[in-house]
Parts: sequence; C-alpha cells; structure tokens
Amino acid sequence: MGQEIERKFLVKNDSYKNHAEEMVEIRQGYLSSVPERNVRIRINGNKGIITVKGLGNETGVTRFEWEKEISVEEAKALLDICEPGKIEKKRYIVKYGEHVYEVDEFLNENLGLVIAELELSSEDESFEKPDWVDKEVTGEVKYYNSELLRNPYKNWKSI
Amino acid sequence: MGQEIERKFLVKNDSYKNHAEEMVEIRQGYLSSVPERNVRIRINGNKGIITVKGLGNETGVTRFEWEKEISVEEAKALLDICEPGKIEKKRYIVKYGEHVYEVDEFLNENLGLVIAELELSSEDESFEKPDWVDKEVTGEVKYYNSELLRNPYKNWKSI
Repeated sequence: MGQEIERKFLVKNDSYKNHAEEMVEIRQGYLSSVPERNVRIRINGNKGIITVKGLGNETGVTRFEWEKEISVEEAKALLDICEPGKIEKKRYIVKYGEHVYEVDEFLNENLGLVIAELELSSEDESFEKPDWVDKEVTGEVKYYNSELLRNPYKNWKSI
Repeated sequence: MGQEIERKFLVKNDSYKNHAEEMVEIRQGYLSSVPERNVRIRINGNKGIITVKGLGNETGVTRFEWEKEISVEEAKALLDICEPGKIEKKRYIVKYGEHVYEVDEFLNENLGLVIAELELSSEDESFEKPDWVDKEVTGEVKYYNSELLRNPYKNWKSI
C-alpha cells in the first residue's frame, strides 16, 4: 500500500519561478481534515483526485497515502459536500538535480505562504537543495494543507 | 453524479431467509462518520468499495452517493486507519416482485438489529412489501450504519 515520503521547506524568494517547467492551479477540499484520516478531494488542472492520508510517522517524513484519479465532474460533486472552506494554490514544478520540487504558492486566506515539497523514495535518500530553499518544516502539522483551512496563514500574526 | 434513493424498514421475523438468493458477509469502517460527509470503506465478500454519502434530503429518501470499487488489499489498508470500531453484518439478497430487498443482520454490538433496505430509481416509485417487513425507518439518522458505531443497538435499552 502507498506511502508518501516527503520533506517540506519554506522558501526564501521567488527565484524558483525562473526554473519552473510547469504551473498548475489546484483547488482542494476535505471530506475529513483530521490528520489521522485525511480525505482530500483535489482538482489539479484537468484531473480529479481523491487522496487518503494517515498521520506521519515519528520523523514526520513518511505518511500512509492512498490515491485514485477520478473525473473532474466527480471531484466537483464531492467538493460540494466537503467541509467548509477550500485551499487554492498555484503549484510550480521545478526540477533540481535528480529531484523535482513542487512549490506551492497559497492563495486567499493563506496568501504569502509558499512551501516547497520534495518527494523521496526512502527517508534517507540524499538530495540537493537549491538556494531559494529555507527552513525545513517536515512533519509540522500546522503546515498540513488541511490545518491551513482551520488556522490559515493570515492568522499566524505571532510568527 | 450519483444519488442513493433508498427506503429502510425494520423486520418482523426471519422468513426472509427462506427467499434469499445470496448471503454476503460485510465488514466496514468509516474514515468520516459525520452524516454530512460520510466516507465508508467496505469489504463485501471479495470486493472492496469506497463510498461517500451526504445528508439525506427532507424526506430522508435521497442521499448524495459516490462510490468506486477498489481492491480488497486497498480496502484493508484503508480500514486500518478508519475511526475506531467496525460494523459487521450478514446481508441477504431477497428478490420480491420487481425489486430487491437487502436484509442486513448486524453482528457484535448491534446483534439483534435487522434492517431491510430497498433501492428505488425515484422517490415515488411504487413497490410491494413482503409480510416480514415492519415499520419504516427511512431517514432516521440513528439507523445510519455510521451512527450504529457511535451508539450501537445494545445501548438502546429504552426502546
């Protein structure tokens, strides 16, 4: 069964845009936003996806993940019954060395937050960091997209 | 997008067994048990199914429903991260007139509860009732399988 092995970083500046191969607009909502059993509905360009994630392990790097492509029509109907609020973001696909960074620029209530994600095939896989990558936030639940619905970035005044 | 149009009845006696064409053992859990956005994982014989249901309409007869067949392995992995507790039941498939009744005998904490369900293609479709069918409970949330996890039949002492 699927696992997601992923590291997340904040971003220092927008120079990732100069290296982006692609940009896709993402809209997503949650049938369940609890971190133990997250059920996400996403429209990603012209694709629909249903994804179930579990809690992260002790390092926060590995999470149970199951996903299935569905039609955009199915995704729209499912979004209609999701919890109130949707996450909208622009995702830039940036190749760097042997890896691909996905850089998410959040919109609306989370405007100003930019997170770079890197999918790995094992927890100890080495990778190169571009100079626009900042502090690592892997496993910090407040950066889970589902948490950003409950407690959006614009409310993080104390940080 | 899918809709479930269904009526539910209590059952007077077990004579439905004499007319059953098939019996299948069902085990199911919930990634989300809230009635507004129910996400169910079911193993039904040798099939896995993920189903999303919304709230019933004002008559309680029609509910939003989306479902997808998945492998039993996927269903098992998803059941592992479901909310605590599982519903287990024996389902008898009983043809009657032009329709098919599904009669669920609940097990474990819900032992003793038997519910007959009838799927219709419209709310006003007429149907025949076999003599083992009792009071209608369509739309009563306490009979939703997800509610039977929270408040199982064995605790309904006052009824």
